[in-house]
Amino acid sequence: MTAVAGVKLGVAQAGIKKPNRDDLTVIALAEGTTTAALFTQNAFCAAPVTVARDHWLASGQRPRYWLINTGNANAGTGAPGMAAALESCAGLAARVGVETEQVMPFSTGVIGELLPVSRLLTGLDHALEDLSEDGWTRAASAIMTTDTRPKLFSRSLTFGDTSVTLTGITKGAGMICPNMATMLSFVATDAGVPEDVLQKVFAEAVRASFNRVTVDGDTSTNDAAVMAATGHSQWTWLEGTETERNAFTDALLGLCIDLAHALVRDGEGATKFVTLAVSGGRDEDECLAVAYTIAHSPLVKTALFASDPNWGRLLAAIGRAGLADLIVEDVTVSINGVLIAENGARSVHYTEEQGVAAMAPEDITIAIGLKRGGAEATVWTTDLSYDYVKINAEYRT
Amino acid sequence: MTAVAGVKLGVAQAGIKKPNRDDLTVIALAEGTTTAALFTQNAFCAAPVTVARDHWLASGQRPRYWLINTGNANAGTGAPGMAAALESCAGLAARVGVETEQVMPFSTGVIGELLPVSRLLTGLDHALEDLSEDGWTRAASAIMTTDTRPKLFSRSLTFGDTSVTLTGITKGAGMICPNMATMLSFVATDAGVPEDVLQKVFAEAVRASFNRVTVDGDTSTNDAAVMAATGHSQWTWLEGTETERNAFTDALLGLCIDLAHALVRDGEGATKFVTLAVSGGRDEDECLAVAYTIAHSPLVKTALFASDPNWGRLLAAIGRAGLADLIVEDVTVSINGVLIAENGARSVHYTEEQGVAAMAPEDITIAIGLKRGGAEATVWTTDLSYDYVKINAEYRT
Repeated sequence: MTAVAGVKLGVAQAGIKKPNRDDLTVIALAEGTTTAALFTQNAFCAAPVTVARDHWLASGQRPRYWLINTGNANAGTGAPGMAAALESCAGLAARVGVETEQVMPFSTGVIGELLPVSRLLTGLDHALEDLSEDGWTRAASAIMTTDTRPKLFSRSLTFGDTSVTLTGITKGAGMICPNMATMLSFVATDAGVPEDVLQKVFAEAVRASFNRVTVDGDTSTNDAAVMAATGHSQWTWLEGTETERNAFTDALLGLCIDLAHALVRDGEGATKFVTLAVSGGRDEDECLAVAYTIAHSPLVKTALFASDPNWGRLLAAIGRAGLADLIVEDVTVSINGVLIAENGARSVHYTEEQGVAAMAPEDITIAIGLKRGGAEATVWTTDLSYDYVKINAEYRT
Repeated sequence: MTAVAGVKLGVAQAGIKKPNRDDLTVIALAEGTTTAALFTQNAFCAAPVTVARDHWLASGQRPRYWLINTGNANAGTGAPGMAAALESCAGLAARVGVETEQVMPFSTGVIGELLPVSRLLTGLDHALEDLSEDGWTRAASAIMTTDTRPKLFSRSLTFGDTSVTLTGITKGAGMICPNMATMLSFVATDAGVPEDVLQKVFAEAVRASFNRVTVDGDTSTNDAAVMAATGHSQWTWLEGTETERNAFTDALLGLCIDLAHALVRDGEGATKFVTLAVSGGRDEDECLAVAYTIAHSPLVKTALFASDPNWGRLLAAIGRAGLADLIVEDVTVSINGVLIAENGARSVHYTEEQGVAAMAPEDITIAIGLKRGGAEATVWTTDLSYDYVKINAEYRT
């Protein structure tokens, strides 16, 4: 049920950074496939991001190949980096007989080292031989960097006597932040969806999934999320009913949330999966401001690591989120259903034992009520552990 | 040379949180002393902050006593917390024969526990017996929380045959952030300075010192910085020459910078003292945006802890600082004088050996050039170490 008709995946050991691991992935899209794409907002975007965006926007033929390497981000590499990204695309295009612009490159790994193009091109031959519709699982592993496990999800829908499959893989574990984390995500469906519609529904799904997770607030130079619709299923967006369309967008959102949650659960050093649910805001922006201020507070994150129901640090974070005229007496904070703070202080009914019990599970939901309006927003994050420091203090050495 | 004529300090062991440590400090200001004050911007400000601000703004008599406890922040304590702060002030006022409004309270320590007022009042008697102009050193220790060392600086000026002394103490080691860190600072001078002038020169000194340091980006509920001018020296602002006034404000700024740097050097788990000097911005705000984005990046901070010249993470942080139309090729990054990145990539002259050598010292200056204009800004920060996590994961338990 994972395979998507019209999409083939192949992997290879190109030795980009380390020997004996799959580090090169080719995803081949059938002719006629439509695509959608979203890229990092970081001004220092990597060469492959620039090239992938240019190729995707190019007015000629539609993208036919996604070329992904791990071990090297090809970021902060200047003009030689751009040349390396283009040369990789040209090498693949020449081997399969498409235009260079029909290849979109994606790189992830260490910043600032030049991409070893000749090793990559040699690896390409093996990856192309490996192409198969059953390649999703191996591809999910081959795109990993510091990830500890592959992240692959799939959904299928039945519309009358047709079925539609949506499958996605993602990677990323640190440098995860809103507005595209260090994250590469590849999603495909066999539904037939016009390009403009696909971009709209995919952007909406990303907004409410990948753009709502944060591990450490560091937006990457290399983020990209792309989606392909091959049209190999009988079902098409244009001929579908409204109910079917809604089922399709719901399945896409659910798939993206599954993938985004998997990123957080595999966050560097993460021992907690934390849902920050803010409600009662005047608008979504102020709910997000509160959620992200909490999510990025090192003091809150270390308390989460200690399973310490430190509501004082939560109130302090809410208080500095920049909300105009915040009435602190109106704010309520619950942890896994236990009301812990209200009226500007610890709840009178709260006991430390309740708090300790509420903080014990791996999954923690912190619900914040603002009593200012009807808006709400949810953000997912992790704690900050010794291992986060260890992983990031030792990554290059 | 530390003592300031007209200022007496006394400490006591009140057992606020732990026995056998000085945790209560009284600072008595001579009649006629003028004062300046700055408080936290956090909406969840603690009860003592509200009371201190109210008393300072009260139109009656001038403040005569600063009452400081450690071990308990009296924050997130609601109405009972307000009552406890007022009761503490009233208790001191009654003992010394001033109005309650002439006492400004300051608390720091754990959030959310009710202040033990009766123990505090008992301690007051001992602190009052202990009052002396030589009490600065013991007061600097008595106001500490997780600080590992007292922070006391002093400067003196000679104007003709008069001298002026400026002395300050500060505390704070975590939850340090711009716009008043978890930080209490008490500065005094024997110069005679009108209240409106004192507020202006002190606010300007704080802006360029305490408001330019960050350890973890968490703004406290309890921050306050206050200054007193007793007028016991012969020199007064109104009769001073412009040169003398400039020497006075320079000395005050230098003193505040010394105190602010001491906060960073004693930052929780800090192993590095990092100066972020951003120049070439269009205005100071965008220089500060770049500096703070770097200062708050967990990936940069863990690289600093590892003494890893990870310029890629620096570029990534600069790229997400939100500067409009940033031309990445114009950005330069130097570490302790070694040009490490330019033209959107690693400098061609740079070698990893140079970078490793540049990162080895405890003191690291990272200079960022933006080539967009003439503005500049400097921010001081620390690295992120295992010990930061350890200290904050175990603080309450």
